[in-house]
Amino acid sequence: MSAPIRIGGATRLYAIMGDPIAQVRSPEVFSARFADAGVDAVVVPWHVPVQRFDALVPALLSLANLDGVLVTVPFKARMAPFASRLGATAECIGAVNALRRETDDSWSGDMFDGIGFVRGADNKGERIRGRRAALFGAGGAGSAIACALASAKVESIDIIDVDRARADALVQRLKAAFPGCALATASAVRKGIDLVVNASPVGMGAGDGLPGEIPPLDADTLVGDVVISDTPTALVRHAARSGCRWVDGRDMLGGQVDAILSFFAASRSAG
Amino acid sequence: MSAPIRIGGATRLYAIMGDPIAQVRSPEVFSARFADAGVDAVVVPWHVPVQRFDALVPALLSLANLDGVLVTVPFKARMAPFASRLGATAECIGAVNALRRETDDSWSGDMFDGIGFVRGADNKGERIRGRRAALFGAGGAGSAIACALASAKVESIDIIDVDRARADALVQRLKAAFPGCALATASAVRKGIDLVVNASPVGMGAGDGLPGEIPPLDADTLVGDVVISDTPTALVRHAARSGCRWVDGRDMLGGQVDAILSFFAASRSAG
Repeated sequence: MSAPIRIGGATRLYAIMGDPIAQVRSPEVFSARFADAGVDAVVVPWHVPVQRFDALVPALLSLANLDGVLVTVPFKARMAPFASRLGATAECIGAVNALRRETDDSWSGDMFDGIGFVRGADNKGERIRGRRAALFGAGGAGSAIACALASAKVESIDIIDVDRARADALVQRLKAAFPGCALATASAVRKGIDLVVNASPVGMGAGDGLPGEIPPLDADTLVGDVVISDTPTALVRHAARSGCRWVDGRDMLGGQVDAILSFFAASRSAG
Repeated sequence: MSAPIRIGGATRLYAIMGDPIAQVRSPEVFSARFADAGVDAVVVPWHVPVQRFDALVPALLSLANLDGVLVTVPFKARMAPFASRLGATAECIGAVNALRRETDDSWSGDMFDGIGFVRGADNKGERIRGRRAALFGAGGAGSAIACALASAKVESIDIIDVDRARADALVQRLKAAFPGCALATASAVRKGIDLVVNASPVGMGAGDGLPGEIPPLDADTLVGDVVISDTPTALVRHAARSGCRWVDGRDMLGGQVDAILSFFAASRSAG
């Protein structure tokens, strides 16, 4: 049972910006978490029309009782320049999905789409450090997860994408930022891999199979899938059949909410 | 028992703009009314810094899921030019306290500070039409109430203000808009008055007396006082002792909330 949401004159505001916006779950999820924690704050949806984004953002960030912003499609990359400083992940992939107001009224941004996987795994007692990863998908979610995996000190990441050039570009970017991690483009899951993560859209369709060629998995392989679906994806079913542990889209979302709330709270406690 | 407030991605936004903002009660009051009516909408506080007002307003009004705005101190007059069209009261006094988005995305504004008194009286079964009014205070609240009284077809209004020039200016403005109403500046409540309204700040202080010279009142005199206070003001006590009915600050606020919700709903039902 959640604490009731209250909105008063002194309530601090957080907003999620997107276009469209009606589909987002963050206002519900975060407002409930604030209420449960006794924080007088809510997250409201802001439908920012794409063509007005650059003109609107500076004005919106000037609202004096706005303490934080969440950013969704299609603004994650466009929002990055509006932050005065970026966290390492945002810096590496050039996109943000959360910003907070600092005590000097400047804005800091970071990207939590990838850390959600690491926190989600952590919440389930799974280790990331030292694993040899294969990652399907080099788009927005894939870039963020690759960066989070490298930050969490995996030994290596093989990046697999139908768009080979996109995979190569991501490998180059990550190599510069994480010289200690072995990065390569790949076309299938090779032997020795003990972490398989899907960050491609495969699995969102009801009849979708695996995101690529995946051999039988050892039981100590950890499997992740960004897809949020009511029934387990083919990849999660494959993991279960192989006796593996897994982190699904909901686990990642939960991990991401935790990580963003910590990010927001750090600014409030400094204020 | 109110219905719980929920905020989701599809929730429509209303905001109250002011500087400062923490003291406003509208987010609580209106959000509860929306929830009770089953309308998926909330009112949130927007602290718009005074010096940024003109730059921020056009941006804020561009948020595509913003359906209405409430306006409080010090923006009621400055907000009027941002409406594409003004209601009669707003037109007459050059200030707005509520705007709604129309189906063509333009904004209509009106001033409900005065209609609150008329609706508050109506809610208590009291007639306004045909009365001979004495009104203390020719400031923002007084102007709005004078205009609402004239619209509600009182026979006459005597306007009493320590700043005589301000009272004269209001009389001139109202005369042009309401040729059928007898308007005059006065210095006291004269014989024959059967409606006495205080729209001055007198009564806000704990030890305040009456807002001016007020003779014994006939029991059929209706008394109004804009002051919202936990204990009855001197004017309300005077009314009670004289056997009069009265409309106090809370009654007016209730009447105003009703009037603004009707104004907002008219736009939603057209959409």
